Parts: sequence; structure tokens; C-alpha cells
Amino acid sequence: MTRRTITGFSNPTVKALRALRDKKHRKREGLFLAEGLRLLTDARECRRLPQSLVMAEGRDPHPLLAALEAEVEAAGGEIIETSPDILSKITGKDNPQAVLGVFAEWNTAIEALDRHGSPIWLVAQALRDPGNLGTMLRTGDAVGAGGLILIDDCADPFSAEAVRASMGAVFTQAIAKATWEEFLPWLRAGDGQLVAASLREAVPYCGAPYAAPCFILVGNESRGLPEDYEAACDLRVTMPMRGRADSLNAAVAAAVLAYEVLAELEG
Amino acid sequence: MTRRTITGFSNPTVKALRALRDKKHRKREGLFLAEGLRLLTDARECRRLPQSLVMAEGRDPHPLLAALEAEVEAAGGEIIETSPDILSKITGKDNPQAVLGVFAEWNTAIEALDRHGSPIWLVAQALRDPGNLGTMLRTGDAVGAGGLILIDDCADPFSAEAVRASMGAVFTQAIAKATWEEFLPWLRAGDGQLVAASLREAVPYCGAPYAAPCFILVGNESRGLPEDYEAACDLRVTMPMRGRADSLNAAVAAAVLAYEVLAELEG
Repeated sequence: MTRRTITGFSNPTVKALRALRDKKHRKREGLFLAEGLRLLTDARECRRLPQSLVMAEGRDPHPLLAALEAEVEAAGGEIIETSPDILSKITGKDNPQAVLGVFAEWNTAIEALDRHGSPIWLVAQALRDPGNLGTMLRTGDAVGAGGLILIDDCADPFSAEAVRASMGAVFTQAIAKATWEEFLPWLRAGDGQLVAASLREAVPYCGAPYAAPCFILVGNESRGLPEDYEAACDLRVTMPMRGRADSLNAAVAAAVLAYEVLAELEG
Repeated sequence: MTRRTITGFSNPTVKALRALRDKKHRKREGLFLAEGLRLLTDARECRRLPQSLVMAEGRDPHPLLAALEAEVEAAGGEIIETSPDILSKITGKDNPQAVLGVFAEWNTAIEALDRHGSPIWLVAQALRDPGNLGTMLRTGDAVGAGGLILIDDCADPFSAEAVRASMGAVFTQAIAKATWEEFLPWLRAGDGQLVAASLREAVPYCGAPYAAPCFILVGNESRGLPEDYEAACDLRVTMPMRGRADSLNAAVAAAVLAYEVLAELEG
């Protein structure tokens, strides 16, 4: 256990933490930041403890914060006390929350996913917007999905924006990365229905013959899914588009479809 | 008709356009920017013409761009030619699109909405994220909604982020602003069912007795709807929440509900 106080803006730890806002540094260190007592409590309840806890001096005491601090100390983690100004510098926010956790990234191998553990899985292909990934994690949590599988070159689910948009679901949902060439053979080696929202030959999404475990595949924000990925799906469904637009926001499409799958599987 | 070329970064027009990225300036001028030929073509097809068109020198010719240019000229608008670097300075992007439109903001008075013109209307209360507003506009277009009504202090639907997220729907959907005290008497003066996604006393959202014109009310991202707003609704519905989270992203909740309302009204 370590406990220390940082008072200087030019302290190397401050610089190292601040650098975690940048993807390249984050990947090199394998670390990410999560801000705020609510998010950190969600993490703790999902048995994810930060390796370091950075806390503002003069913060209001809170029983959940005391509990978190005790667990991080017990696990051999580091407790850093610093000023609100330095926390502001680390997070890049004018009004940072009073507590910040530094977490080691995790990455579940696709082979380690228990596909029968949940009736629904979300699959994102080349999604570029970290806010969309975070929102998909949040929706996945809400529909009782098992996790989010990231195919091909997706945004970083551990970026500040994705973590924030996930509202804690980054800690509850399994997150696996795979190429299409890894994903498809894994999927076909067991049960699993692959469903895509499609504009091409497709059945109406309402009342389609969904089957668990159902893998809902959503493609890149501007290009959609590659044609051969769509062709490999067991079911292609289409949602009504009554206006000028020909597609929905990717996270919205995933959610409308996931809630329909949930209703059909349970109905 | 005016046509001119701007070559200097310190040209006052460049400064004025650049300032439109800031909400305060945008509101004072009553102008907003929309970028890219696709978005500007959507606008044109919805009979929204920019008062000025800013185009990059050396751009690729395109029949849709030529048509747009001709219409802006015919309507007495201004055509500005400038360098890609200056366009980059105006938009704040490294790789700006080759064309930018400057539009006068519009604002439909709530009294002017034709509530029977569409079976669905989206209503946002104190939504703070412009991306969520833009996504709601995009979803509204997709479900054939009539427009988006902004209640109380919402983000700006004409901000660059909202316009981008709307994918052109900012030009197809009516946009009205009202206080709750203006909205509720207007609604009650005619037909209209007010529906809220709620965590309190509520019926399941699937198969609820929706009726057109149906007004789907979604509350602030962190606080949700005020209790008395919820109490004033005709129908409170709840969506399954199977995980740790107790709410969905606001734009996601609006979309899941809007698609269910569409399915029920037509089913």
C-alpha cells in the first residue's frame, strides 16, 4: 500500500495521468481513467478496483468513498491526494469530480465468452465514435446483454468519452475484440444467431424469428456493414424509414433492435 | 447576387463565420453553418437555401453543387470562393468539406405546428447534449415524426454538433421551442396524447395504448423529467432495465419508444 500527496503541477505522476487522455499513451500503458464516485462504486460492485485512486483534498466525506478507499488499500493499490486544480489539469475539466480511478484495461478473449450466459450480445463493426460504443455498452447493460464484441478497427471503449457514455456499463459488460476472420469461425463453432440491420434483402424487424443467443451486428457509422458480412448473417432485418434519411444512428439502431429482440425472446 | 473571393485569413467575413461556432455569436446573428454537399443538398430538397455558400477553390465539380450554386445565386444569395485552408479555419476541422452553407435560423412557433400532420412528435425537456438533440431529429425523420419540440432550457439544435448528428433531419423536422407553461395549454387545446418514459408508476412500453398524435416526452440526461411533468402525462411507460443501470441514453430511450409507438399505431 502506498499513500502520498502531490502538490506540484509538474509532478511526473500528474503528467503520466494527464497523458492517459491520449489514446496512444493509454494503449502503451494499458491504463484508463474513470471519474466520479458513482462510476467508481459501479466498478467496485462489479469487482473492478482501480490500481490507483486520486482524490481531491477538502472533498466531502462519503461512506461509499471511504469503503472504496479501504478496498483499494487492502488490495495493495495506491492512494493519491491532490488539489482540485491538479485534478482539473489531469481530467481537462473545469469542475472535475472529487475522485478519479486509474484502472488496468482488460480485454476478454472471444474464446472466453460464455455465449449461453446471455440471450443477447451486441457486435460493433468498425464503429468510429467512442460515444456510440459507450452508448451501446449502456444499452447492452439495460437489455441484459452479455457484452460487446468489437470487430475490425473500432474506437477505444476505454476512452474517456466511451467510459462516460457507458454510465458504468463498461464495468458490467464483457468487452472482446476480434477480427471478422476470428469472430465468424468462433460463432459458427457453437449456437448463435447473427442478425444485421440491413437495407438490402431483409425482413421487417418487428416479429422476426429471433433466437437466443442472438448476436446483433451493427456496422460503421458512414459505410454500414460490408456486403459479405451482411451475407454471412442468419437474419437480415429492416426498420421502417419514413423520412428522407436511409439509416439511423448506429447506437440507436442497436438499441431499437436489441429491445425488439428482448421482447420477442420473452414474448 | 454577390460573388467574391476571400484570400486572407484576417478577412472580417472569415472571422464572422468562424465566430458562428460559438453559441453566443450564433444566437446574436441568427445564423448557423452546415457543411458538406450531402447536407446542403438535403437542405435544398427541403427548400432551405443558405444565404451564403462558401466553396473551396480547386474543388471537384459536381452537378449537385452546380445546381445548388445556381439556386443560391437565383435567390440573391452570396457565393464566396476561398482556400481549403481558410475553410479549415472557419470550421475548425483539419479536413473540411469543400462546401459550407450559412443558413438563417428558423424557429416554428408552437401554435404553428399542425399536430394532425404526423402521428408522432418528439418532445425534449432540458436536454443538454446537442448530439442527443441531433440524434432525436434523425430518429424523428426515420419514424415519420412531425418535429421536435424543445421544452425549457435545451441545447442548441443549430449547433454544429446537433446539425451533424441530425444527418440532414434538422432541415426536414419542424423545430419549436416553448416553456412547459406554453406547451401544456397548447397541447390540451386539441388532440394529443402525452407519453413519458418513466421509472415511477408506469405500464410496460410494449403494447401500451398509444394514440395519435402521440407526443413522446424525454427528460434531461441526468435529472430525468420533473415529477409534475410526468404527472401531467396521459401515459407513463417503462422499458425493461435488466442490468445495473436505471436509465437509457435520452436519444436511445426516445428512439426505442418512438419505434414501438410507430409499430402499435400501424399494427
